[in-house]
Amino acid sequence: MTYDPKTFRPLTWFDATARFHEREDDPRRYLERCLETIASREPAVKAWVVLNESGAREQADASAARWRTGKPLSAIDGMPIGIKDLLETKDMPTQMGCAAFEGNFPKRDSAVVRALRDAGAVILGKTVTTELGGTHPGPTTNPFDARRTPGGSSSGTAAAIGAGMVPAAIGTQVGGSVIRPASYCANWALKPTQGALHRGERQGYSQSTVGVHAGSPVDMWRVAMEIGRRTGGDPGHPGLFGPAHAPDAVKPQTLAVMETPGWEGLDGATREAFERVLAALRDLNVTVLRRGDTPLLESFERGIANMQWINGDICAFENRWSFANIAEQQPGKLSFRAMKTLERGNAMSVEDYRQRLREREEAKQRLLAIGPVCDALISLSAPGAAPIFDDSNLRPTGDAVFNCPSSSLGAPAVTIPMLAVAGMPVGVQIMGQPHADARIAAIARWIGETATG
Amino acid sequence: MTYDPKTFRPLTWFDATARFHEREDDPRRYLERCLETIASREPAVKAWVVLNESGAREQADASAARWRTGKPLSAIDGMPIGIKDLLETKDMPTQMGCAAFEGNFPKRDSAVVRALRDAGAVILGKTVTTELGGTHPGPTTNPFDARRTPGGSSSGTAAAIGAGMVPAAIGTQVGGSVIRPASYCANWALKPTQGALHRGERQGYSQSTVGVHAGSPVDMWRVAMEIGRRTGGDPGHPGLFGPAHAPDAVKPQTLAVMETPGWEGLDGATREAFERVLAALRDLNVTVLRRGDTPLLESFERGIANMQWINGDICAFENRWSFANIAEQQPGKLSFRAMKTLERGNAMSVEDYRQRLREREEAKQRLLAIGPVCDALISLSAPGAAPIFDDSNLRPTGDAVFNCPSSSLGAPAVTIPMLAVAGMPVGVQIMGQPHADARIAAIARWIGETATG
Repeated sequence: MTYDPKTFRPLTWFDATARFHEREDDPRRYLERCLETIASREPAVKAWVVLNESGAREQADASAARWRTGKPLSAIDGMPIGIKDLLETKDMPTQMGCAAFEGNFPKRDSAVVRALRDAGAVILGKTVTTELGGTHPGPTTNPFDARRTPGGSSSGTAAAIGAGMVPAAIGTQVGGSVIRPASYCANWALKPTQGALHRGERQGYSQSTVGVHAGSPVDMWRVAMEIGRRTGGDPGHPGLFGPAHAPDAVKPQTLAVMETPGWEGLDGATREAFERVLAALRDLNVTVLRRGDTPLLESFERGIANMQWINGDICAFENRWSFANIAEQQPGKLSFRAMKTLERGNAMSVEDYRQRLREREEAKQRLLAIGPVCDALISLSAPGAAPIFDDSNLRPTGDAVFNCPSSSLGAPAVTIPMLAVAGMPVGVQIMGQPHADARIAAIARWIGETATG
Repeated sequence: MTYDPKTFRPLTWFDATARFHEREDDPRRYLERCLETIASREPAVKAWVVLNESGAREQADASAARWRTGKPLSAIDGMPIGIKDLLETKDMPTQMGCAAFEGNFPKRDSAVVRALRDAGAVILGKTVTTELGGTHPGPTTNPFDARRTPGGSSSGTAAAIGAGMVPAAIGTQVGGSVIRPASYCANWALKPTQGALHRGERQGYSQSTVGVHAGSPVDMWRVAMEIGRRTGGDPGHPGLFGPAHAPDAVKPQTLAVMETPGWEGLDGATREAFERVLAALRDLNVTVLRRGDTPLLESFERGIANMQWINGDICAFENRWSFANIAEQQPGKLSFRAMKTLERGNAMSVEDYRQRLREREEAKQRLLAIGPVCDALISLSAPGAAPIFDDSNLRPTGDAVFNCPSSSLGAPAVTIPMLAVAGMPVGVQIMGQPHADARIAAIARWIGETATG
């Protein structure tokens, strides 16, 4: 199935609800179409750990009744949504892609799941995650080529959107777990500002966020905001800022190219595809700053040069107590990749961790410093198309080199599904200053609609 | 049992280990003495939810063997410690003083518990907490007068120290849950800088810390540091700073009195006892600043004037999703006090929460502003002796008016058991700038040793 962004038709919700008002369609029929797509695609894609079909039908029927009386709870009332299997759901187990959590069933809803239910959304099922959100893959395949990875750790979430199974699904990102799989699977996705959406029981990392994957920028934003206005942000954080409706497209004046250390190793086709986007932007009178154009940008790039390593150290240290518990209580239940992460964390001292935090903080200051010179940063969302799956790889779900900056800097990022390389999707990433989520969503929408070359 | 700080002999550890080297004593015999005290006092005090006596004996024997070979894992190797029943322990249930968590047994160690085990400490049992660390009391009584509250939420922790059952125990504070019960029960206690000790699975509040209660300032500091150097701080925090050994006593040049809104309502005896401490400090050539002496201090007091209310709003909003889950999944299992907290959180919008965070942030800035004018702040640890228990009270475990400032400001606080009012203990509180934990521990030690009047 060769991917072409010009002809690919993702599943959307925002343009379906007008027909609910007129009773030509309703959430239950919408859900049944999703289930048909799942029935047809799931045997190859393997996006889901568990589906709650009967529960979803009940929720969809209740939503249909609300639409009939003209009283939907929100714009996403009735929308079928998948939840990454790291987040707790009261009606389905939460097994985290990890043998140690087989059958784990806490019977409560994570904060975002509660918010989605309160907005009327239909919680359809749990999507496959890599083991504990790390690098060890689950069974999911790329919906555009089953030999390839869907990316991770939000593997099932991204694949479900790419296969048109649901109009939106929830992912999480610590390193590159939202934007990269979204890039590989032709999703729109928002990785919000650090802390903007409440992480519920998953507060263990200093850099991780709940993100939204969708078939369209309108659904992406609406889902994020329906969550944000209900749960607020993480403890101590002000939460997501922006309009309740999807931001209108906004043309940027100036974009700065973020190269990251991934730039050097790019294949020619991916680099050319990205350069064509930049050329199209210039043709539209957008100023595009490159690395040499201003010392502020050069300084920013130097600040993120080691970010993938810093990321890895910070996360390894932060979860060492919880991994150590699992390793001790359930020996043999962690993959060799998770055990390597535990070793890495155990090798660090508190002083090592403090130093990494300091380096991350300095990089954040450099991001703030380039605020006045550009409306946003533009980059690739991944270093090329999804790789052919190879379990002997250190990172079988792909390389997060383009994603670690936004994760470490706590900066919002949106990926736009607008490129094809060798018949596979590749995303363009827009990254902004912390709390500029609505602004970058608006810029991303404009680029996706306008700068397609 | 009338309390007199001059004659009261708390249980200590630091001065027992010299005899371990000489084989005149060992951790197993120390433990057996603790168990004897528990057997005698526990029927009235009710400090413990569960004791793991056989596990503790095994751990103590292993520690004794290490001391015999001259290779203890740390200065607290073999120390019997109680763990507040909000924190997970792999070998005991974690029931959180809440009917909804009856029998809850996650079989893993919270980060501080892991650290204590790694340091060789003997995890003796779980101490009573109020329901979910809130205001609804458990069965524990005050060890100095069974008609009175031990304070909360670290009720069993404080009572176990006050009764001489263990030399140290772990508490947690969101509003006043370490310093207040420690004050009522004649403990030394450290409520560290926000984030200084890893909270493990309990990251749900933006202001809460793990604290250490002990019979002496030496044991208090050593336990804190043995945890801190192993777990580090909360995700994203640099952790506890200071020496591994207990800080030597340090004489302050200038202390500023923190009145808080609690000053107005103080009973005469408590106020006089506190003023005698201030007079003793002045006699020792310590400058004591009062509210009128500098506008910076007046501004600071105005910044914390509504802190108890701000605290309450922030915490109610932060736990509303988790309380809502319990209320929905296990109806009737929350107390009326917890249900009131849930209502309060549900009545708030994200914008309300943002405003409270802003107010808290402004108060933090006012604390920073008085940094240069004093070495530390001095205050009472509670507005008088432990009240006679009255379940019809809104706050049956006492009033946190003197504690909310340090909690909200993320500032370290130490309580010194040095006053007696009507035959009951009352603590003097030293509060410092964030990360000045070791400095205030040193100042508190000096005051406790020197300024007893």
